[in-house]
Amino acid sequence: MGKALVLEEKGKLSLREFPLSLDVGPDDVRIAIRTVGICGSDVHYYTHGKIGHFVVNAPMVLGHEAAGVVLEIGTNVKHLSVGDRVCMEPGVPDSTSRASKLGIYNVDPAVTFWATPPVHGCLTPEVVHPAAYTYKLPASVSYAEGAMVEPFAIGMQAALRARIQPGDIGLVIGAGPIGMMTALAALAGGCAKVYVADLAQPKLDIIKAYEGIEVINITKQPAAQAIAEATDNWGADVVFECSGAAPAILDLPAFARPGGAIVLVGMPVNPAPMDIVGLQAKELRLETVFRYANIYDRAVALIGAGKVDLKPLISASLPFKDSIAAFDRAVEARNSDVKIQIELSTDGVAK
Amino acid sequence: MGKALVLEEKGKLSLREFPLSLDVGPDDVRIAIRTVGICGSDVHYYTHGKIGHFVVNAPMVLGHEAAGVVLEIGTNVKHLSVGDRVCMEPGVPDSTSRASKLGIYNVDPAVTFWATPPVHGCLTPEVVHPAAYTYKLPASVSYAEGAMVEPFAIGMQAALRARIQPGDIGLVIGAGPIGMMTALAALAGGCAKVYVADLAQPKLDIIKAYEGIEVINITKQPAAQAIAEATDNWGADVVFECSGAAPAILDLPAFARPGGAIVLVGMPVNPAPMDIVGLQAKELRLETVFRYANIYDRAVALIGAGKVDLKPLISASLPFKDSIAAFDRAVEARNSDVKIQIELSTDGVAK
Amino acid sequence: MGKALVLEEKGKLSLREFPLSLDVGPDDVRIAIRTVGICGSDVHYYTHGKIGHFVVNAPMVLGHEAAGVVLEIGTNVKHLSVGDRVCMEPGVPDSTSRASKLGIYNVDPAVTFWATPPVHGCLTPEVVHPAAYTYKLPASVSYAEGAMVEPFAIGMQAALRARIQPGDIGLVIGAGPIGMMTALAALAGGCAKVYVADLAQPKLDIIKAYEGIEVINITKQPAAQAIAEATDNWGADVVFECSGAAPAILDLPAFARPGGAIVLVGMPVNPAPMDIVGLQAKELRLETVFRYANIYDRAVALIGAGKVDLKPLISASLPFKDSIAAFDRAVEARNSDVKIQIELSTDGVAK
Amino acid sequence: MGKALVLEEKGKLSLREFPLSLDVGPDDVRIAIRTVGICGSDVHYYTHGKIGHFVVNAPMVLGHEAAGVVLEIGTNVKHLSVGDRVCMEPGVPDSTSRASKLGIYNVDPAVTFWATPPVHGCLTPEVVHPAAYTYKLPASVSYAEGAMVEPFAIGMQAALRARIQPGDIGLVIGAGPIGMMTALAALAGGCAKVYVADLAQPKLDIIKAYEGIEVINITKQPAAQAIAEATDNWGADVVFECSGAAPAILDLPAFARPGGAIVLVGMPVNPAPMDIVGLQAKELRLETVFRYANIYDRAVALIGAGKVDLKPLISASLPFKDSIAAFDRAVEARNSDVKIQIELSTDGVAK
Repeated sequence: MGKALVLEEKGKLSLREFPLSLDVGPDDVRIAIRTVGICGSDVHYYTHGKIGHFVVNAPMVLGHEAAGVVLEIGTNVKHLSVGDRVCMEPGVPDSTSRASKLGIYNVDPAVTFWATPPVHGCLTPEVVHPAAYTYKLPASVSYAEGAMVEPFAIGMQAALRARIQPGDIGLVIGAGPIGMMTALAALAGGCAKVYVADLAQPKLDIIKAYEGIEVINITKQPAAQAIAEATDNWGADVVFECSGAAPAILDLPAFARPGGAIVLVGMPVNPAPMDIVGLQAKELRLETVFRYANIYDRAVALIGAGKVDLKPLISASLPFKDSIAAFDRAVEARNSDVKIQIELSTDGVAK
Repeated sequence: MGKALVLEEKGKLSLREFPLSLDVGPDDVRIAIRTVGICGSDVHYYTHGKIGHFVVNAPMVLGHEAAGVVLEIGTNVKHLSVGDRVCMEPGVPDSTSRASKLGIYNVDPAVTFWATPPVHGCLTPEVVHPAAYTYKLPASVSYAEGAMVEPFAIGMQAALRARIQPGDIGLVIGAGPIGMMTALAALAGGCAKVYVADLAQPKLDIIKAYEGIEVINITKQPAAQAIAEATDNWGADVVFECSGAAPAILDLPAFARPGGAIVLVGMPVNPAPMDIVGLQAKELRLETVFRYANIYDRAVALIGAGKVDLKPLISASLPFKDSIAAFDRAVEARNSDVKIQIELSTDGVAK
Repeated sequence: MGKALVLEEKGKLSLREFPLSLDVGPDDVRIAIRTVGICGSDVHYYTHGKIGHFVVNAPMVLGHEAAGVVLEIGTNVKHLSVGDRVCMEPGVPDSTSRASKLGIYNVDPAVTFWATPPVHGCLTPEVVHPAAYTYKLPASVSYAEGAMVEPFAIGMQAALRARIQPGDIGLVIGAGPIGMMTALAALAGGCAKVYVADLAQPKLDIIKAYEGIEVINITKQPAAQAIAEATDNWGADVVFECSGAAPAILDLPAFARPGGAIVLVGMPVNPAPMDIVGLQAKELRLETVFRYANIYDRAVALIGAGKVDLKPLISASLPFKDSIAAFDRAVEARNSDVKIQIELSTDGVAK
Repeated sequence: MGKALVLEEKGKLSLREFPLSLDVGPDDVRIAIRTVGICGSDVHYYTHGKIGHFVVNAPMVLGHEAAGVVLEIGTNVKHLSVGDRVCMEPGVPDSTSRASKLGIYNVDPAVTFWATPPVHGCLTPEVVHPAAYTYKLPASVSYAEGAMVEPFAIGMQAALRARIQPGDIGLVIGAGPIGMMTALAALAGGCAKVYVADLAQPKLDIIKAYEGIEVINITKQPAAQAIAEATDNWGADVVFECSGAAPAILDLPAFARPGGAIVLVGMPVNPAPMDIVGLQAKELRLETVFRYANIYDRAVALIGAGKVDLKPLISASLPFKDSIAAFDRAVEARNSDVKIQIELSTDGVAK
């Protein structure tokens, strides 16, 4: 038994011993966790005690963005070995469900997902996970980068759904962590250039540092006007809505070119008015994303090949013993912070 | 010079002599109009004098759903001959524009479209039209059916955008003329079955007469519940929103299966609230349609092959001299009327 | 233990007691087999003892096109009940393999497939099968039709890969059983018309009986010429190569329209010369098919809805006790035979 | 009238005065040519006097890879101005043909293409070209790079047809100029890594210099084995056949992953045997390319954004007066030469 970062109830975290099963089934692997990133959803459970109809009714271990090293493999496991450095997909579907058979296992209603009540997360020294959802990291990819694969996978899913064509012009609305991930995924995924629009200049400064990214501070110029100027009044080929902000959502038709695509990534709290006639006048296609499926291997490939560098987005890294402080900093939501990570020691002391 | 049905101003129609150029350019054909259907947009210009920012500021000839016979061909025209029975695409783009080069000429901003101010329509004995947007009718297709190709093309565009896979289950929300056209296009386009939901039983009775169509009277059972029952709680593969009604639009996620598609065909007057998180939870794809492009030949093929029979949707056919009465009946919008057509005589008397 | 039709070795069939495990795992169902169709591959194992590198080295039960009724369900099974009439996908993949996760479980190298050495088939009164690959038949679909779902699924897979657009003109080269299935799937899947080309008039006469199908006897007119005449020299939108014949394969570019699609369904014994420059000049897309994935439910939907009627393709039906005679007739490969089926008694006597 | 590089007949080039019409129609622009690349097809006409059924029966101006500056614009031209630096699509379709309306104007049978008999090319100081097929170069893109857009567009078309998904692993067979262009397009278009296989090490050394490209010398290791090792025996997601070599074409199934794609870019002189059953066993999709359509703007965007650097592939640049020497060097086909270009003077002296 090991320690875990436990959300006891809304607003109350403990770092304490917590009983989690470590039985390794024939298709499972046991993994020593090395790095875990803090996600907005972890923070939201901490501060609100629920997300939608997922309510924290009992103490729950947090964390779902993780990388580690394989300690033990089940008897059927072929593609992994003890000692492999790995990252893990936190959602595990029923692999023979109708959705899974179609290859869209992310929308299988039976998915269990780390740190989504009542399923425990991975902020603990060891976990057991299905080998099929555990991915080997190349030597060039650190644990810290490995723990970035999960949020990057959301951006990748958005880039995939967009069906980017080589040389497309992309526009990302909203420069939060997911907006940044999406911009980098779109750029790596074939866009000639990606424009990122936000009203917080410190966020824009962080993403602007990447070659191929240009930024639009919408306090100075409306995004629609900026993209029109940049594209001879044609519009962006692919637009990624990552703000969840109602005014941006209403304005979507203005951003895209005739026949272009819009990917809805941001999750507005309430139903948002959309200009359907405006969307129709350009015959736009809208895609939505829900987490990701079949993305981890290609995300790891892009990071491993050096085409995507996520290290500049890791704003701070705290030791496991300071997990609560790490969460409290994440709660602050500083404009200059993108991702806060927690590092578990490699010597077993943290256990 | 011939007579034409002229919208003099909002609310006032005349059947009178009207000067229209009949010069045949090298790529044009001159056509004797035989049948013209009355579209909701024609009626709307009549009753409101405008649609959106398209305002009738000067007398305008109405009508854009037409079939006729070729009287004369331009010097470059190869694929048509004098005497060919034809139907015509009412929208003509700039064929070298950026959108046209991409094959999406329907969203070319330079399109001119019959009976859309300030462009005159075709409710007149003769018109000149580009041969490239004039399509030959097979002998088995009547002028009346030929004049149905235009509204059917909208349903076809919706079916195409849906990317129906053989054996899909379809759901059409709204049993107006376009909803019916969409249902028939979806059925011909590969759906195993298409459910049509509306609250007007007379409309449902008309479309229910087609084999493969099942109807849902939403005054008796919510569409979401009916489609859930019909699909083992999986949902429809493809959903066509043809009502433009805000409650239906808000409810869209409930109708579709995980990973399914929604096509927005209906045009709500105002921005409509959409449940974006609901759409994301099933990772739905949304498509929009704007008229049609590259549809006429395939619509004619389906009608000519007998796979689609639009004749039961022609509710009444009046002679050209009674055009104003025809429009006034169309204004009534009887639940039992789908399409009212106007027939031009074949002996030149109407001129 | 029950009787089974056993291929003892190349050329030698027995109907005899054969030990097959009937243990029902938690995700399995036990099924009483009612009807089994004879496939060309069954016949080929009988006459040649192997297909490619699959060699019959030990007695093997034949049959993989089956329908039956559920006798027992495993503890986890939700979507099936005892007494359900069902058909079964004969191939079962490793559901967490890389291919299965992508939704293309048909190309998972670990698939086990009925009556493919060393896996036994289903020509026996009872089998145990994974519930996830067992599909309920609606009341309107007979066991005989249920046993046609397997070969029809191949045609459906071809129609899906073609990405038919509503109103497409289809061309099927080769009027064998799979060619016929493909023609019907393409027609149900959105084609306005499907042309079927072969040199055996009796086969063409069978498929010509379907409305929407037109036939080309290539002993009288080359297929390329016939399709050119039928399409104003444009070509077919989608071409299905179901003959496996080298001359047809070399000629493929002549059949398709610019930008059209070709689906390679037929399996030529040897590498076949292809006119790559000819394919490029029209920028054709080629798809290949391997069995099917995610097809059974939509195939059942089309048959259940009455959009596809496979009954005319069942040429003969023999009782289980005459299985060997049924196979010997299948070996004859009469031009007027499409599918021979074997019926198992419902009273247990055959056991 | 100006000088032009004229292919008088097979094997005989002259740089001489040649009468070409410079009438500027309302939709045309007149352009001063600055740089022209020499293409393999130019060389082939020079050495063989024909390509397929295109035969040089009369003196013909060569050259179709060009950039220049606008000298005059037609009365309808909006998107270009005098002084704009531009590159030109050498193929001009009938913009209202059936293929053009579909957006696939490259396969319009009526296309006229520079330096394809009997149409003259652009190796002359001034040409008139339709504005719709003339594309503005950003200030950061030189004329030399502008003249590389044409061959790069072929690689881009291949990348587009492949439908690359972000993070795909690509494999290019054949490191000729088009193979290199394709590799760079695939990399810019979303591949994590692109492997290039050839037997000429000097060619591999040139392309290996690009980050993200890895090379396979097939004289040392079969390409299939190398790609299997690089992908855990899964295969490449997208394979580009750019060699036109029969053994490579026969081997294609071995290179791709299950469900992967193959793009046939190379043009074998004769029909080439293909392993259809091997392609089917992995259910591979094959695409073909013919030149390009709707590519120039996105190719220019990628070059302008710095995502693709084609300058290292310009092996030599000779003045217009040395055009014949430039062609004779191109005929040598040195392993270390990728592209030879010809520069026209900017002072009018060359006229």
